[in-house]
Amino acid sequence: MTVHLVGAGPGDPSLLTLAAAELIRGARVVVYDRPSMDAIVALAPEAAERHVVGLAPGQRALPQAEVNALLVELGRQGDVVRLKSGDPFVASRGGEEAIALRDAGIAVNVIPGVSSALAAPAAAGIPLMLRQNSVTATFVSGDDDDEHAEPPDWHALGALGGTLVILTGRGHIRRISAALIEGGRAPDTPIAAISAASRDRQKILRGTLTDLPAPLPPPVTFVVGTAAALELTCTSPTAS
Amino acid sequence: MTVHLVGAGPGDPSLLTLAAAELIRGARVVVYDRPSMDAIVALAPEAAERHVVGLAPGQRALPQAEVNALLVELGRQGDVVRLKSGDPFVASRGGEEAIALRDAGIAVNVIPGVSSALAAPAAAGIPLMLRQNSVTATFVSGDDDDEHAEPPDWHALGALGGTLVILTGRGHIRRISAALIEGGRAPDTPIAAISAASRDRQKILRGTLTDLPAPLPPPVTFVVGTAAALELTCTSPTAS
Repeated sequence: MTVHLVGAGPGDPSLLTLAAAELIRGARVVVYDRPSMDAIVALAPEAAERHVVGLAPGQRALPQAEVNALLVELGRQGDVVRLKSGDPFVASRGGEEAIALRDAGIAVNVIPGVSSALAAPAAAGIPLMLRQNSVTATFVSGDDDDEHAEPPDWHALGALGGTLVILTGRGHIRRISAALIEGGRAPDTPIAAISAASRDRQKILRGTLTDLPAPLPPPVTFVVGTAAALELTCTSPTAS
Repeated sequence: MTVHLVGAGPGDPSLLTLAAAELIRGARVVVYDRPSMDAIVALAPEAAERHVVGLAPGQRALPQAEVNALLVELGRQGDVVRLKSGDPFVASRGGEEAIALRDAGIAVNVIPGVSSALAAPAAAGIPLMLRQNSVTATFVSGDDDDEHAEPPDWHALGALGGTLVILTGRGHIRRISAALIEGGRAPDTPIAAISAASRDRQKILRGTLTDLPAPLPPPVTFVVGTAAALELTCTSPTAS
């Protein structure tokens, strides 16, 4: 009995790994978070048991402790495919679920995935690292959460330089941007906002830390740094 | 005519994305870096043209400018699949290749991939982000390179906290570790070294910034931070 914590990528099923697709196609039980993962869950056998534990229409997300308990309960009965958006260990609660399962003596197998922290810059043609430009890329959770060990040190992140990828910070971007500038980032530092990276409704807007891109629907990934002005995915008419 | 910059993942072909596998299976021309990618290149049709441009036995790596020129030349003739280890925009020169192609008017398509910055922690059972522990993950290129805009600010990285993933810094880890401590990281901060993540010869060692893990064969990914002491991939005998 193993619970597979599977990175489901940013939303486009073609960005699943082969390992993830194989596990889903053979799944007996699938646990997932959102209706937006329907196209991926559809790969599972029709007879597979499906549990949606996140935000679904007319339903509140289960508290994390209840998700953990459900995974332990299901994991005691047999193999489980637990889909996590992006990568299970980036801006996700995969670590918490792995701890709960380990503490219950249930085997855990982690399949890494394409985080939207990688897929969103790729979609916008922004190299997170470019030797001549940036040799660091920092991913940060931008939302407030009582369970956070401590809030991100936005001043230190402003001082660090390099490329900064802000996940789940959509509602706080004005405050975050001000703190980055206070920390030492130039006010005209480019910022790109990528909404629904890899999905049909993907949208990309650009601006600067003082002249922020207009709000976009969630989920939004922000990329901050000189690299965010680049747009290296050519969309010439010859693209296949 | 499109050059597809394709993230090939950390080495295990099962960590390719479905999109990457499809492009490789239909490729007419494949350009790749290392013999270690042979298992992935083997997915291409037998008749496909293969160009190895990196370190191969008895062969020096082509200078980046020559790789760029080759991609432009091949891209003018038809579609090309350019495999990049991990993700094309993380600790890679995918950005440079995209710039050269764009400047030559050749369409570029970027397929993100599972960077070893994600696959190595997953293999070791280390959550890069865990709300109760770390809300930032920083990826940094640890090697020296004349083309680097400026060397990483190891003192600032030491002061930042969170989880730090050091790529390509194997030969400098003693110096890097000392600079992180000078910057403010506790000397007993856990560090994990993961060699050849996802491949058959994968090896994982743990230590602290003062008591570093013994050297391992390349490629090595280091993970620094309190999370690096965790080991959440359970290898109980019940694991399937």
